[in-house]
Amino acid sequence: MITVNEARSLLFDLVQPLPAEEVPLIEAAGRVLARDVTAQLDQPPFSASSMDGYAVKAAEVELHAMFKVIGEAAAGHGFDGRVGAGQAVRIFTGAPVPEGADFIVIQENVERRGDIITIVDQPGEKSNIRPAGVDFSKGTQVEAPRVLSAEDVALMAAMNIPTVPVSRKPQIALISTGDELVMPGEVPGPNQIIASNTFGLKALLEGLGAEVRVLPIARDTVSSLETAFGLAAGADLVVTIGGASVGDHDLVGAVAAGLGMERSFYKVLMQPGKPLMAGRMGDAAMVGLPGNPVSAMVCGYLFLTPLVRHMLGLKDTVPAFRRAKLVAPIPRNGMREHYMRAKLEDGGIRAFENQDSSLLSVLARADALLMRPPEDPAREAGEEVLYLPL
Amino acid sequence: MITVNEARSLLFDLVQPLPAEEVPLIEAAGRVLARDVTAQLDQPPFSASSMDGYAVKAAEVELHAMFKVIGEAAAGHGFDGRVGAGQAVRIFTGAPVPEGADFIVIQENVERRGDIITIVDQPGEKSNIRPAGVDFSKGTQVEAPRVLSAEDVALMAAMNIPTVPVSRKPQIALISTGDELVMPGEVPGPNQIIASNTFGLKALLEGLGAEVRVLPIARDTVSSLETAFGLAAGADLVVTIGGASVGDHDLVGAVAAGLGMERSFYKVLMQPGKPLMAGRMGDAAMVGLPGNPVSAMVCGYLFLTPLVRHMLGLKDTVPAFRRAKLVAPIPRNGMREHYMRAKLEDGGIRAFENQDSSLLSVLARADALLMRPPEDPAREAGEEVLYLPL
Repeated sequence: MITVNEARSLLFDLVQPLPAEEVPLIEAAGRVLARDVTAQLDQPPFSASSMDGYAVKAAEVELHAMFKVIGEAAAGHGFDGRVGAGQAVRIFTGAPVPEGADFIVIQENVERRGDIITIVDQPGEKSNIRPAGVDFSKGTQVEAPRVLSAEDVALMAAMNIPTVPVSRKPQIALISTGDELVMPGEVPGPNQIIASNTFGLKALLEGLGAEVRVLPIARDTVSSLETAFGLAAGADLVVTIGGASVGDHDLVGAVAAGLGMERSFYKVLMQPGKPLMAGRMGDAAMVGLPGNPVSAMVCGYLFLTPLVRHMLGLKDTVPAFRRAKLVAPIPRNGMREHYMRAKLEDGGIRAFENQDSSLLSVLARADALLMRPPEDPAREAGEEVLYLPL
Repeated sequence: MITVNEARSLLFDLVQPLPAEEVPLIEAAGRVLARDVTAQLDQPPFSASSMDGYAVKAAEVELHAMFKVIGEAAAGHGFDGRVGAGQAVRIFTGAPVPEGADFIVIQENVERRGDIITIVDQPGEKSNIRPAGVDFSKGTQVEAPRVLSAEDVALMAAMNIPTVPVSRKPQIALISTGDELVMPGEVPGPNQIIASNTFGLKALLEGLGAEVRVLPIARDTVSSLETAFGLAAGADLVVTIGGASVGDHDLVGAVAAGLGMERSFYKVLMQPGKPLMAGRMGDAAMVGLPGNPVSAMVCGYLFLTPLVRHMLGLKDTVPAFRRAKLVAPIPRNGMREHYMRAKLEDGGIRAFENQDSSLLSVLARADALLMRPPEDPAREAGEEVLYLPL
């Protein structure tokens, strides 16, 4: 069996970063910038007033100095003339500073009578002028790759970048497998349960920027699985859930192999999630997740999340662990890397009592996966451990 | 002038939690659960095997014990009979445990010849049975309000909840104002800049679960602003950006008042963002943000984010500050609460050198707003400060 890190590396080999597409800037937030983009102008494009007041020559600024107001500059409307000695131009925030002026006396420091202003309060040293290009210059780049934040989008708007090259969204097909499953809203038979994994995984993967199709549940028969794989055509990534264990009814691996899947690995030295499977299947990557709800979601965080980020062209794709102190002891770990459902509290972390991999109620209360290395000894409260935030 | 906290309280008085609507579970992630929902069944609905193996009577389990296999139980297909003394039923993960059996010997601990199995490895104490209802019982509630996570959605699927009551999305109209503005993609005139605030705010607010309309830019005239307010009809919240300062060209307050806006407050003791305005305008709340790009986004985090969360019916709407140690000194603060753009680094926080409220490039590099109380003295590296993560 291979380790979690080895499995993740092999997964990355199964996909390639997706091509770029241009989208309108207004739709770009949350997408991954695919190429560097470049400011089309200086910002501000001209020296601009940062206050409402009067534009004058700095050398003439002193208490009781008087100026004649010769015109006005507002945002969007400059003053065409030149400010000479003893002259001032009424100016508003965002307006271009007129030629000849290099200081804005704020209006609170001035008394005005007709066309004459007098400085009645010490204006201080600050010129209240934003030099041209102080925010950015024409040619300044926003560097790819990055997930575009609201601030990035605002910045690119100011740079006059109306459309943005972003990585195409990964197309993912999700297939739940198992005779025991029915969809929410159906009435389960006496031996059946409700399919939940595709619902959780769709939400997780769409939050990362993927486009996810939930396919009909595949039954534990060759023909039903073949139909489901057929419906997945066109996807960049096909994810099956369940049917990947060693039971006689676990057909996914066999059917996938029959359809030409080249297996990359099967089984990972981890808990939960051991019976993970992956390979290439035609034009798509294929990942077979275990069917226990918690195992499937944990594998979603540990493997599918990095895989999607890799497909989107991001660089920092390996999950970043954080450190916290245990608030309660944990027993020794077995031979597999163990991702315990845990809760951050009082500045520390506490593993839930019941770690059974079927317990969605525990996973929904968790906000962290506490990572135990293989053979990690029992740990006391106060000892530091690694965790992944959920 | 009022404080940031006072302004926020007054804002909450301007809106009411929005009504609930039912959405399909598959679309519920990220929405706010409006009412408690209830599990429609026990999970698992029956005692289920957690392993592939053989169902037997626990009392008969010991090394070298032999059993006769009388049938099979698979996921979705139970065994209808009863397990008697000396009998076993072949069982797979997720299958109902047959009557009479209370222990699953995993297949790795068994040798099988024809219909006879022999226990060849010590099976241990664990029964490998998940009792009915161990995850949740019929009637277990998922409590509102909460932002639904991927795990919540998976849990509600397992609970057989096909549609979910969520708070209707707040409808927000954004109006940029100013003669100096043109849209990205246009060629700015000599005194003009590109409108960026609506782009950043739309991304921020949609990320919170709002539906945002960006209206045409309003010019600095009464009729243009009246047209824009007219286009905002139907919104729960109308947000203007710019034109809210004291300059002669700042018309927003006057035009809004002319249209019947009842002002709640104007000006907040903060930096950036002082000329904030809010009130009721017909059926909508109205917030007037300052026009500097950084001021507008900071007000987006400090005021619009809590307001949207309040409209969505969430309880914890006041931003939660965190603590970090300064990695570089900061000068004394003035009389207004100051939200400095800052970067988290090396376990500490560093305020950017240039805090001018026009600098989008600085905001885009920031990942925190460092909060300075009024009259906060100069602080040295190593001192603890409060911040909001962005």
